[in-house]
Amino acid sequence: MSYTAPVKDMLFNMQHLANIEQIAQIPGFEDAGLDTAQAVLEECAKFTEGVLAPLNFEGDKNPSSWKDGVVTATPGFKNAFRQLTEGGWQGLQHPADFGGQGLPKTIGAACMEMLNSANMSFALCPLLTDGAIEALLTAGSDELKAIYLEKLISGQWTGTMNLTEPQAGSDLALVRTKADPQPDGTYKIFGTKIFITWGEHDMAENIVHLVLARVAGAPEGVKGISLFVVPKFLVNQDGSLGARNDAYCVSIEHKLGIKASPTAVLQFGDGTAASIADSAGPGAVGYLVGQENRGLEYMFIMMNAARFGVGVQGIAIAERAYQKAVGYAKDRVQSRPVDGSINASAAIIHHPDVRRMLMTMRATTEGCRAMAAVAAAAYDAAHHHPDADTRKQNATFYEFMVPLVKGYSTEMSQEVTSLGVQVHGGMGFIEETGAAQYYRDAKILTIYEGTTAIQANDLVGRKTARDGGQTAKGIAAQIEKTEGELLASGTPAAKAVARRLAAARQAFLDVVDFVAGGAKASPNAVFAGSVPYLMLAGNLVAGWQLARSLLVAEALLPKGQDEAFLRAKITTAQFYAEHILVKAPGLRDSIVEGAGSVTDLALESF
Amino acid sequence: MSYTAPVKDMLFNMQHLANIEQIAQIPGFEDAGLDTAQAVLEECAKFTEGVLAPLNFEGDKNPSSWKDGVVTATPGFKNAFRQLTEGGWQGLQHPADFGGQGLPKTIGAACMEMLNSANMSFALCPLLTDGAIEALLTAGSDELKAIYLEKLISGQWTGTMNLTEPQAGSDLALVRTKADPQPDGTYKIFGTKIFITWGEHDMAENIVHLVLARVAGAPEGVKGISLFVVPKFLVNQDGSLGARNDAYCVSIEHKLGIKASPTAVLQFGDGTAASIADSAGPGAVGYLVGQENRGLEYMFIMMNAARFGVGVQGIAIAERAYQKAVGYAKDRVQSRPVDGSINASAAIIHHPDVRRMLMTMRATTEGCRAMAAVAAAAYDAAHHHPDADTRKQNATFYEFMVPLVKGYSTEMSQEVTSLGVQVHGGMGFIEETGAAQYYRDAKILTIYEGTTAIQANDLVGRKTARDGGQTAKGIAAQIEKTEGELLASGTPAAKAVARRLAAARQAFLDVVDFVAGGAKASPNAVFAGSVPYLMLAGNLVAGWQLARSLLVAEALLPKGQDEAFLRAKITTAQFYAEHILVKAPGLRDSIVEGAGSVTDLALESF
Repeated sequence: MSYTAPVKDMLFNMQHLANIEQIAQIPGFEDAGLDTAQAVLEECAKFTEGVLAPLNFEGDKNPSSWKDGVVTATPGFKNAFRQLTEGGWQGLQHPADFGGQGLPKTIGAACMEMLNSANMSFALCPLLTDGAIEALLTAGSDELKAIYLEKLISGQWTGTMNLTEPQAGSDLALVRTKADPQPDGTYKIFGTKIFITWGEHDMAENIVHLVLARVAGAPEGVKGISLFVVPKFLVNQDGSLGARNDAYCVSIEHKLGIKASPTAVLQFGDGTAASIADSAGPGAVGYLVGQENRGLEYMFIMMNAARFGVGVQGIAIAERAYQKAVGYAKDRVQSRPVDGSINASAAIIHHPDVRRMLMTMRATTEGCRAMAAVAAAAYDAAHHHPDADTRKQNATFYEFMVPLVKGYSTEMSQEVTSLGVQVHGGMGFIEETGAAQYYRDAKILTIYEGTTAIQANDLVGRKTARDGGQTAKGIAAQIEKTEGELLASGTPAAKAVARRLAAARQAFLDVVDFVAGGAKASPNAVFAGSVPYLMLAGNLVAGWQLARSLLVAEALLPKGQDEAFLRAKITTAQFYAEHILVKAPGLRDSIVEGAGSVTDLALESF
Repeated sequence: MSYTAPVKDMLFNMQHLANIEQIAQIPGFEDAGLDTAQAVLEECAKFTEGVLAPLNFEGDKNPSSWKDGVVTATPGFKNAFRQLTEGGWQGLQHPADFGGQGLPKTIGAACMEMLNSANMSFALCPLLTDGAIEALLTAGSDELKAIYLEKLISGQWTGTMNLTEPQAGSDLALVRTKADPQPDGTYKIFGTKIFITWGEHDMAENIVHLVLARVAGAPEGVKGISLFVVPKFLVNQDGSLGARNDAYCVSIEHKLGIKASPTAVLQFGDGTAASIADSAGPGAVGYLVGQENRGLEYMFIMMNAARFGVGVQGIAIAERAYQKAVGYAKDRVQSRPVDGSINASAAIIHHPDVRRMLMTMRATTEGCRAMAAVAAAAYDAAHHHPDADTRKQNATFYEFMVPLVKGYSTEMSQEVTSLGVQVHGGMGFIEETGAAQYYRDAKILTIYEGTTAIQANDLVGRKTARDGGQTAKGIAAQIEKTEGELLASGTPAAKAVARRLAAARQAFLDVVDFVAGGAKASPNAVFAGSVPYLMLAGNLVAGWQLARSLLVAEALLPKGQDEAFLRAKITTAQFYAEHILVKAPGLRDSIVEGAGSVTDLALESF
């Protein structure tokens, strides 16, 4: 169950699709060109292949465990986390001002994929810490920044996101956790949060919980929610750890997958700590982040970072499942090839349907990776480019990409990991084989940090209807340009891809008109197609990036380097177009012409 | 986690799609009309809802366990099995001559669905016993029949199928288990079999293993395989149990799902038994079924019965997942409906995307159930109709349906159970919720009794190419007739369905020509599309049966009975057409125009 980081594919995307050399011209990123990317990726590959990947199966077999409020991570995880910290991996994308490496997301996203391919349960811990760092950077006071950021960025402490309560999942308006203002400017937090990833563990000295709660007298609904920092241990003026805060893990969940990552139920301020000598309770001490009642806005900063990250997790687990399936398919001997090319039982990779499964896994993974790479570059330009218009254009593009990267890559990861099990046949169903773990692990990805439906609502509402479909149409215009280049190339592969890309783009445009035109007048009809729209859009953008890759590969081929890689890229792009992109017109028909039958059934008939 | 058997839907299918009253005119089935069906189904509903369903979650939490060769089933299973036996459920479809009830498969398939919805792990035991009974009925000597059939049909003993060996999965040519002829006409069996479902347990007095093995000197490959009965306990002349046979369970697997059903590694003839006082070893005593070297042929009889049964398992687990998701969606309150119809947080079933998921689950399940019902009726006519031509026509139709029922229903069950988890959001990922169990359980269905690729090979080779696509085209002609009836009806729903059905049928015909024309000349191209062809064909036939259902419902509506049920059937059929059948043209394009990119990638590029 080894893992080999797809460094070459990642660098190809960075160089040719994400234009990393343009990112390296942005002030602050001068050192972040292709050479740096290569060096960082190779180092990250070593760490993830050598340290994290070997712990993945162990984490599933021997998950984090809870006893009397203490959570102990899988054996080996604490040591691996120490190495993550020492390698500076937590701070990769964070500002040098607070000890980070200040590298662009274009590079960071690739490293994040490696971490998650190697060990998704483990990688969730730094992913959540990233979110906490983002929130503090954006909205934290100078004092909060001074106390927390360096420790979080170094990896000495970890961060969590506390949103969900038993009655408040996707609907954060229902959050009930209370924050009582104290005379010293702090708050006392009381309430229960569930589904808190790495909410308690023994890998770091302190855990910085970012918690949504209501200050007494705040407006109802989402406009009355504030964000607080609630550390596991209070922090003294000199940065040393003080009293244990009244924030305890009362249990962890028994889950389908990502078992090594503890999913905590956290109890804030139930007085448990009062029985502990050095406790600051009862009531968990919290520090307001930014202004009261703007918590949701800040939380969205964390969420958006995390949503992109979860999309990358989808790509990561798909890559791991693909590698494992390829290994098995090359090894397992069963039946003669149907074309008579081998007159004996052969490795199953010789069977066309096994090829179809492997190509589906490969093409989907590469397509989503390319999409994420381009989105990451847009993020970097949106946040750091000196020109305001360029920043704005890139921000708009990135915002459109976030629900696609999150929604499409994760939905696809479930198909890919399912095919991964299928390639293994009966052995895939045996847990010791390891293929089933990826299938189980992947299932959370379409749920947490906003279900696919929540991503689709975002795509329909804020990203499409709000600007009348202008952003979507702008992307379609860029795709049309790529089609022109494919036709100009004129190779059979380019022409085949152009044809499917054009059909998918037209389907997309029809749906954009339907969505932009109907979101207010016929919300049920539009939202009935919201997830299919997301799937169509993600499919299109991933297919577009592979089409661009094909053009690049065709242009590079005559130079005589890496011929096998480039030819594989062309075939993979063509496969994607002919077997995945080809689904787009059917989705269009369902969305535009089939909305009624989604909601027609009488409630009592279910 | 209760279960309510969908008796009304089953009876609707039997009466209006499968024409059970015609089955009841076949000699021997005179008592098997609709009234009998209703009485049997209601009784079966009671048993499965009351006895089996409550044990399903327990079986997952507390699976069968192995110790020193002894397998103990989940607490409660042995008692439930006793009730299965006492209720005569094992013998439902088997001949009255051997103590069975002699009911048609048309009724039996519905009962099988209930058993599997209620408890798939449990229901696997009678399903495998059915296969053993079929093999003995077809190929067993009178002596074997006399000794084994009554006990198997009563459920006093259970049966297993022993095909797989570590090196021989889909490729049975690689079977190595040996059978040494003995002077007394018996054989001594030596070898290891894996993946033997319910291969060892404590629910019945004896276990009758049907084992594939090679007699010394037999031809290589599949033409040298014979079938043997190898009982766990030898049987004395008077039918009482004798010595323990040298067939031992050396371990059971740790699996992704169906955990309560022990998946055994069986060791035949390793001499273990020699240390046991009353053993018949070394060497497991086996009795030849039929003639030497015809084992595979007989095994296919078991396989075909089992394949249909596994297809029904797909429908069954989908139904259970659907019911659970509906229950949660009606109960869980989260967010306001987008259409403003409720000005407060509402049950999530009010959200269009939740409706889309539930409708997808419902339509797929009902479509596959209708397809299986029609196939079951064809089986009955194929085996029992007095007219030879009618038998032959029905046999041809049934044979075409088997890979569709097996392949399509099980692939779909994975999408349905995945959506079931998704409807539950974060709670779906928590094992205690129970939704994840269906997702895990369903994953085996596309693998065992022949993977989807194996079903697709069967569909392409024996069922389509062999007769030049004539059977397939005959089915398409029947579908075209249904389209005419839909257009004649002229309601908006009927017209919408007719349109999608026609497009899917045309796509199917294009693929049939491609498959029938190219199977010999371009096997790689044809087999690259084999699974997509199966998915297209299954989709079409299920959609066709729902289209027929719509016509029936429209005709019955004016009679004023069951209006809610009939209207739901119409909406469900329309949803199926607009959201599932609509995928067919895309599949056609992939198969007919995209075959090359499936197998083009160089082997070393994987």
